[in-house]
Amino acid sequence: MSLVVQKYGASAVTGLDQIKDIAKRIIDSYNSKHDVVVVVSAKAGETNRLIEMANYVCPGQEGRDYDVLISTGEQLTVALLAMAITSMGYNAKTYLGWQVPINTNSLHAKASIENINPDNILHDLKRGVIAIVAGFQGIDTKGNITTLGRGGGDVSAVALADVLHADHCELYSDVEGIFTADPIICEESCKIKKISYDEMIEFASQGARGIQIRAIEYAKRHDVKIYVRSSFTNADGTLITREDSSMENVVVSGVVYDKNEAKIAVMGVPDKPGTAARIFVALADNDISVDMIVQNVGQSGISDITFTVSKTDLDKAYQLTKSIADDVQAREVIADKNICKVSIVGLGMRNHAGIASKMFSALAFNNINIQMISTSEIKVSVAIEEKYTELAVRVLHEVFKLSGSTN
Amino acid sequence: MSLVVQKYGASAVTGLDQIKDIAKRIIDSYNSKHDVVVVVSAKAGETNRLIEMANYVCPGQEGRDYDVLISTGEQLTVALLAMAITSMGYNAKTYLGWQVPINTNSLHAKASIENINPDNILHDLKRGVIAIVAGFQGIDTKGNITTLGRGGGDVSAVALADVLHADHCELYSDVEGIFTADPIICEESCKIKKISYDEMIEFASQGARGIQIRAIEYAKRHDVKIYVRSSFTNADGTLITREDSSMENVVVSGVVYDKNEAKIAVMGVPDKPGTAARIFVALADNDISVDMIVQNVGQSGISDITFTVSKTDLDKAYQLTKSIADDVQAREVIADKNICKVSIVGLGMRNHAGIASKMFSALAFNNINIQMISTSEIKVSVAIEEKYTELAVRVLHEVFKLSGSTN
Repeated sequence: MSLVVQKYGASAVTGLDQIKDIAKRIIDSYNSKHDVVVVVSAKAGETNRLIEMANYVCPGQEGRDYDVLISTGEQLTVALLAMAITSMGYNAKTYLGWQVPINTNSLHAKASIENINPDNILHDLKRGVIAIVAGFQGIDTKGNITTLGRGGGDVSAVALADVLHADHCELYSDVEGIFTADPIICEESCKIKKISYDEMIEFASQGARGIQIRAIEYAKRHDVKIYVRSSFTNADGTLITREDSSMENVVVSGVVYDKNEAKIAVMGVPDKPGTAARIFVALADNDISVDMIVQNVGQSGISDITFTVSKTDLDKAYQLTKSIADDVQAREVIADKNICKVSIVGLGMRNHAGIASKMFSALAFNNINIQMISTSEIKVSVAIEEKYTELAVRVLHEVFKLSGSTN
Repeated sequence: MSLVVQKYGASAVTGLDQIKDIAKRIIDSYNSKHDVVVVVSAKAGETNRLIEMANYVCPGQEGRDYDVLISTGEQLTVALLAMAITSMGYNAKTYLGWQVPINTNSLHAKASIENINPDNILHDLKRGVIAIVAGFQGIDTKGNITTLGRGGGDVSAVALADVLHADHCELYSDVEGIFTADPIICEESCKIKKISYDEMIEFASQGARGIQIRAIEYAKRHDVKIYVRSSFTNADGTLITREDSSMENVVVSGVVYDKNEAKIAVMGVPDKPGTAARIFVALADNDISVDMIVQNVGQSGISDITFTVSKTDLDKAYQLTKSIADDVQAREVIADKNICKVSIVGLGMRNHAGIASKMFSALAFNNINIQMISTSEIKVSVAIEEKYTELAVRVLHEVFKLSGSTN
């Protein structure tokens, strides 16, 4: 008897008939001699609908009662899923966050899991029950309902898999796994069978869908194996797991892109210490994350500072930057939404020189101008003009020979 | 400082703007030096929507997970109401059933309150908090969410008023109070200022709207004063309270009618002991409530048995009755949806002879034929042909001089 934790995302529970389909899938797993613990999201659109209502009656409040409201989304789907399983003659039982309990800190709307008591669920599993747990929610030490923020459902599933000592955790969404490149723009792309936590964190943070970074980081810390699979097919998914020796043989695992960033360039900044710091402190104080940063010091101590922020933060970031730039008498500030970040990711890069230069040459050969560059130990990212996105992905997929390589 | 419990029904929380209106009303009460505890229903239509979903995924199941689903309706409205009050600068806090806690037995979908611990709420009231409690729901000894069934929200409010030793309980709906007759069909009707629990139980069970019988019975047992008021006006409502000496002076307090009943007549039943019992046991076994019953023994031991059931139960009740009637060789079974029950209610009837005969004469004088009669100590009901309903109500309202009598 093995134990699996399955997590179904919003797209899997959007309609009542889909919920019945998922119920059958879960029963199949159960009948394959698995103890099954299921974590469910709210249906697609429901959380946004609840947030809109909250903003109408009390704009900007994300406190105790906000979480009471938002947590109804998962409460609805766990109940319907458990009832669907019951109607098929199997024994299912719902657990809300406070009933597990999933204990969190008190940061409403973005709480973190502190610990989970697995005893109630383990007791029910022994009796043959299929446990259906509301993801994304928990309870703090004062007995208040909390929610974990975006991606919290994935974190709930991974954390449960950890404390229940599950064989692995299956994350179901509408993508079939992790691909060497987005199959929509790159026909040659193939599904990756196995990938390390670190690579997956880079994939997810550079734009790949299917799983949230917080959940991968949690899984890495607690060594929980994850399968990313589609709830609409029976295809094998991608296993996200601890790095093994075979993985380093693959120099580049995949190409990802992210169109959600925008660029701000501060041109002609007089060379006075602390200008860059002033800008980035102001952005951080306003909860604006900065991704890539490049600073060029030109002639006579005049420099340019260029960085990227999320497109949704662009207007606010531009205003903050502009007022500091004016203050230090910089020449001008340029905002540009028309960019895309394209990245190559791979554990093997650590031991292979020349990967970055191979990337830059391939792009140059295809007349794609590189505007910014950032690197990590296992990733190289470039910002390019947005219209070259698809071309760049295909070029890099080919030059690193990713077609047919499924690890 | 006094303490009031206010309960807002489904019609009061249907839209987000209505929720904001209610928030202002509650703040007004709070500013009049009241501690305020608010109980809220799900918005109009929400509970039915949830029940429809439940029936689609698992028809006929009203167990543990059904209550997890249904209880989201109130969770949504308490959260939105508390947030609306917070946005107006006041301190509000939500309580779900398990957070009060409101302890119930484990009869899912129709649980009864066993006890309520008022300490958490009292602690918050002392700090100036407005407590917003989800009605209709509780928790059993195993930590499962339970719901109280239809009308449970009123019961929650009355039970809270009891344990909190509130000055009174205000039940807000879309009716302004209890009237001597339905104002829609009787222009002369007037609002009753004060009425006893027993009369109100008869009013509610004979068809008057505004409050559920279970809640009145609970209030009577625990001596909780109730005001029935409208959430759409500032008009004084009707006080439901313990009987006092002035009340017996009013012979008839009001006229009510109920079009939701249907009649079944079993004609020509051979006089064999136990036939009536067989019918009523069969109906009870199928959860069909019988209201009025009349049995006439005619010549040569042949009798007729006539009774009323709810219109929604008519088809099933007819089939059950017909099969027993055939078995005992009764002549025929007639079903009739075309009836209405009209009742007069009043404490003073106990000391006044001739009230029933005055009622029957008035109806006869207006050519309204009486098909069945049933009486209690403080009520006389008759079943008549449905088309005479409005006429009968107006005739009785006039003959008992109810216009201008507001107790």
